[in-house]
Amino acid sequence: MSILVVGSVALDTVETPFGRRERALGGSATFFSVSASFFAPVNLVAVVGKDFPKEHVEFLKSRKINTRGLKVLDGETFHWIGSYKYDMNEAITHSTCLNVFEQFKPEIPKEYRGKGCLFLANIDPELQMSVLDQMENPKLVACDTMNFWIRGKRDALVALLKKVQIVVLNEAEARQLTEQPNLVKAAKIIMAWGPSNVVIKKGEHGALLFGKEGIFSAPGFPMEDIADPTGAGDTFAGGFMGHLAREKKADWQTLRQATIYGSVMASFNVEDFSLDRMRTLTDKEIAYRYRQFVTLACFE
Amino acid sequence: MSILVVGSVALDTVETPFGRRERALGGSATFFSVSASFFAPVNLVAVVGKDFPKEHVEFLKSRKINTRGLKVLDGETFHWIGSYKYDMNEAITHSTCLNVFEQFKPEIPKEYRGKGCLFLANIDPELQMSVLDQMENPKLVACDTMNFWIRGKRDALVALLKKVQIVVLNEAEARQLTEQPNLVKAAKIIMAWGPSNVVIKKGEHGALLFGKEGIFSAPGFPMEDIADPTGAGDTFAGGFMGHLAREKKADWQTLRQATIYGSVMASFNVEDFSLDRMRTLTDKEIAYRYRQFVTLACFE
Repeated sequence: MSILVVGSVALDTVETPFGRRERALGGSATFFSVSASFFAPVNLVAVVGKDFPKEHVEFLKSRKINTRGLKVLDGETFHWIGSYKYDMNEAITHSTCLNVFEQFKPEIPKEYRGKGCLFLANIDPELQMSVLDQMENPKLVACDTMNFWIRGKRDALVALLKKVQIVVLNEAEARQLTEQPNLVKAAKIIMAWGPSNVVIKKGEHGALLFGKEGIFSAPGFPMEDIADPTGAGDTFAGGFMGHLAREKKADWQTLRQATIYGSVMASFNVEDFSLDRMRTLTDKEIAYRYRQFVTLACFE
Repeated sequence: MSILVVGSVALDTVETPFGRRERALGGSATFFSVSASFFAPVNLVAVVGKDFPKEHVEFLKSRKINTRGLKVLDGETFHWIGSYKYDMNEAITHSTCLNVFEQFKPEIPKEYRGKGCLFLANIDPELQMSVLDQMENPKLVACDTMNFWIRGKRDALVALLKKVQIVVLNEAEARQLTEQPNLVKAAKIIMAWGPSNVVIKKGEHGALLFGKEGIFSAPGFPMEDIADPTGAGDTFAGGFMGHLAREKKADWQTLRQATIYGSVMASFNVEDFSLDRMRTLTDKEIAYRYRQFVTLACFE
């Protein structure tokens, strides 16, 4: 099954204790697409400026990502400048230049509107809703969001969540959205709004999957060195949705495995800057790390 | 196999957002003993004052804990006064009255010095070493510690660790002891000093077990309400060591299961104040929660 993703394609200038990259490939839809492309065909809808390097488009194409929905507008590409201190869980944003992204009005090509999976990456919930309205009969809809929209467009966001099956967000966002510090209670509140599943990402502490069947806890992969955590959440979502699209189902057992595949992909991506680790990653490495998660988490 | 535990028996005055208890039963060796008693025979060495309520001794005896090594000295029992805010991961200490505990010179009764397991709960590392020196041929030695000794008696502590097979400590202690923020690296440093295994407790985020075979991650049990986290770490250690003593082995698979049993016992204890949950806990409930951990963590 194919996956349609709508979100940002950006250039990131990032500094961590382990190095610095200027105008490297980034953006929520980019991290998601490349990660998901290891599992299923991906259709990308996003916008970039005239300055967006052709080599990045070539890289996406080399991953068999359909870039027909990647619009090029007059102006500059979305540019994020940020850094991390030794606590890699928290990004410090120095500047966010939306540039052409400010005019982003996602138009979904007709051939993408069919029956695949849809992932609404982190953009304005009103735009996320406009994408959903254009879809004909999506099999499975999931979305992400961020603190900026929870604060500024909470009603639009809650209205969107009512129409979505799976919500993927981090623990701070879950707490902020529900005004509930306890994550179990927070997930229950979100599921009461409509979604059948909630995935709460906890950074180095792993991820929790909630559903009517119960709770699944995926461990964080113990790492000695993290080069750059940028995009870990979107890379997680790509592996998660990718596995569901590959398996063409979202039952509890498949969702549990998907949570592990999400963790696998995120654990690779943070090993290098930008999407550089994805450029050399192989299916064999993914399968091997999945087995490492089995020995890490399973005790029976 | 029996377990000898040496540590504190105390009275705790605790306040959390969910209530308050005055002079309730507490102390590292108490939480450990009662938790371990669900798995194996326990011999307790500690000291209390003349004010220590007889009913507490009766409770320990009712759990088949051998209290021959519990000395009663003139004076008052160790009394800790503390509280927790909504972040239950951090205790705020208001006062620590050591009282008779200041004169604690652990003497190990001859019949306890044999071949069982030894757990050196959190006391002065010099006292922990004096206990170890009195032992004849312990099968397995594990210890805990705390920030106070890491700061004040680091050399004595590191000397002790060289003679211990298993170290159980929390993430802040592991970082402080090794001056290494990364837990994987911290565990490697500790193992290089001598111990074959390190268990790092991460509160609500579970626990990590390290050994030459690799890393095992036990999830935190997702809870909606925590009444009182006091003693969770010692209760964890009791379940952990209890399972090893019951199985009479400490191979990698048994250690992994022990990490889960530790998490099971801690998850029960925080449901109520002091050791109150332990008073009604049954073997059947322990077995059921262990199965819950299987569905929580295992995906294959």
